[in-house]
Amino acid sequence: MVRMNVLWIFAHPEGRSLSGALRDEGLRALSELGHQARVSDLYAMRWNPVVEAADFGHDPAERLVVSAASQRAHTAGELSEDIRAEQEKIAWADALIVQFPLWWYGMPAILKGWFDRVFVKGFAYGVTDPSGRTLRYGDGRLAGKRAMVLLTAGAREPSLGPRGINGQVDQLLFPLQHGTLWYSGASVLPPLVVPGADRVSAEEFRAHAGRLRERLASLPTAEPLPFRRQNGGDYDEDLVLRPHLAPGRTGLAVHYAPGT
Amino acid sequence: MVRMNVLWIFAHPEGRSLSGALRDEGLRALSELGHQARVSDLYAMRWNPVVEAADFGHDPAERLVVSAASQRAHTAGELSEDIRAEQEKIAWADALIVQFPLWWYGMPAILKGWFDRVFVKGFAYGVTDPSGRTLRYGDGRLAGKRAMVLLTAGAREPSLGPRGINGQVDQLLFPLQHGTLWYSGASVLPPLVVPGADRVSAEEFRAHAGRLRERLASLPTAEPLPFRRQNGGDYDEDLVLRPHLAPGRTGLAVHYAPGT
Repeated sequence: MVRMNVLWIFAHPEGRSLSGALRDEGLRALSELGHQARVSDLYAMRWNPVVEAADFGHDPAERLVVSAASQRAHTAGELSEDIRAEQEKIAWADALIVQFPLWWYGMPAILKGWFDRVFVKGFAYGVTDPSGRTLRYGDGRLAGKRAMVLLTAGAREPSLGPRGINGQVDQLLFPLQHGTLWYSGASVLPPLVVPGADRVSAEEFRAHAGRLRERLASLPTAEPLPFRRQNGGDYDEDLVLRPHLAPGRTGLAVHYAPGT
Repeated sequence: MVRMNVLWIFAHPEGRSLSGALRDEGLRALSELGHQARVSDLYAMRWNPVVEAADFGHDPAERLVVSAASQRAHTAGELSEDIRAEQEKIAWADALIVQFPLWWYGMPAILKGWFDRVFVKGFAYGVTDPSGRTLRYGDGRLAGKRAMVLLTAGAREPSLGPRGINGQVDQLLFPLQHGTLWYSGASVLPPLVVPGADRVSAEEFRAHAGRLRERLASLPTAEPLPFRRQNGGDYDEDLVLRPHLAPGRTGLAVHYAPGT
């Protein structure tokens, strides 16, 4: 049996909520599965989501270039203590669960700012191998780790489907799942989406909790989303998908390899 | 000549930046065009991006349901003063410019939290007409207003193109342009994207500034993105696109009406 270290990132303002109940259920399941879990409950931590000069020990009188200042502070071990604590949790973790309610079709600001502040240059981007090759989209700091989004949404399921007015949910999640987690090297499992989340009956809750338990049971083994690797030969030197792949097609879906 | 009130929302931590220079250029252009401008410089305002019970005068001992609490506070005129000030600027404005650097393929947290906190229920969602019909996606509080994204991105242009590894930029912006601005009723103009933003030469800056001036000159008249209206007959009762429209296709692109 595979034992994993799991970092559960929780970004809901109210623990006495469907989201809180799902988190508690998930943590019980992880414990029963023999995994270790740590929780970053961003509201409870009063997490500061705003990138600022102070994160980097940067003199505010000097012009701030976020990428350069963050890379310098990261290399020097001078990032804010709250950022370093989250980076240490990520280093410890074999898997990340990213749980949030869908607000305006994206993450709550407190969670977006967890990525903005923790995923600094040198840690999650601007990472190279000894030959100078850029490590991203399938390679990088999070390589070998797994990640899964647990999403609650007020919208009903059809409206988040492939032709639903709110947008196909995996494409709404592309900036997070592909542009952040996969960018940093993590294998991203299919998201667990709980639609109609503001009107879940007790019976529906049991069904959602059961699906969550199943997804956590398969956390070590489930097949990740088949995002294409930057260094796998599918992209040209301008990082454009080569013409023989998904020929004639455009948009976010072309970055999924078919038939896997 | 059409004179407009323009709200310029600026979400960069450093005014002494390409972003700051573009903002200043844009504000000069608006003034020369005879428009009135107000600026919400979120970093300078030290904007708080985190939705919390205190926004709504909500008793923290009681369970918080954000949608209900925000709607109650909005109706009662009891939202936090900082939120009401932004709502008043929006009410004043004929057009919104939303300017930000692309961080992890989305908005900086401080800007996401501007939408999270200001676009409360009753103001930007959960709005109905007297017959009880939901007003969103082309109807709503922002109907009659125009909005345009001004985006700077470190990535180079091909990588943000239709087959670029970072994702087609208008689809990365879908949660904001379609899911937030169009949802609330605004007509969304094509975004102005400045790629390669961390290495812009003086000559390139002049070209970008010129494009910005052109876009601001056509702010009252430019053709908006052809997003489909919720109440225009294109969607069925489950809010799924009817099968004869974009037949057989899926994903975010189906929500643009062709040939317009």
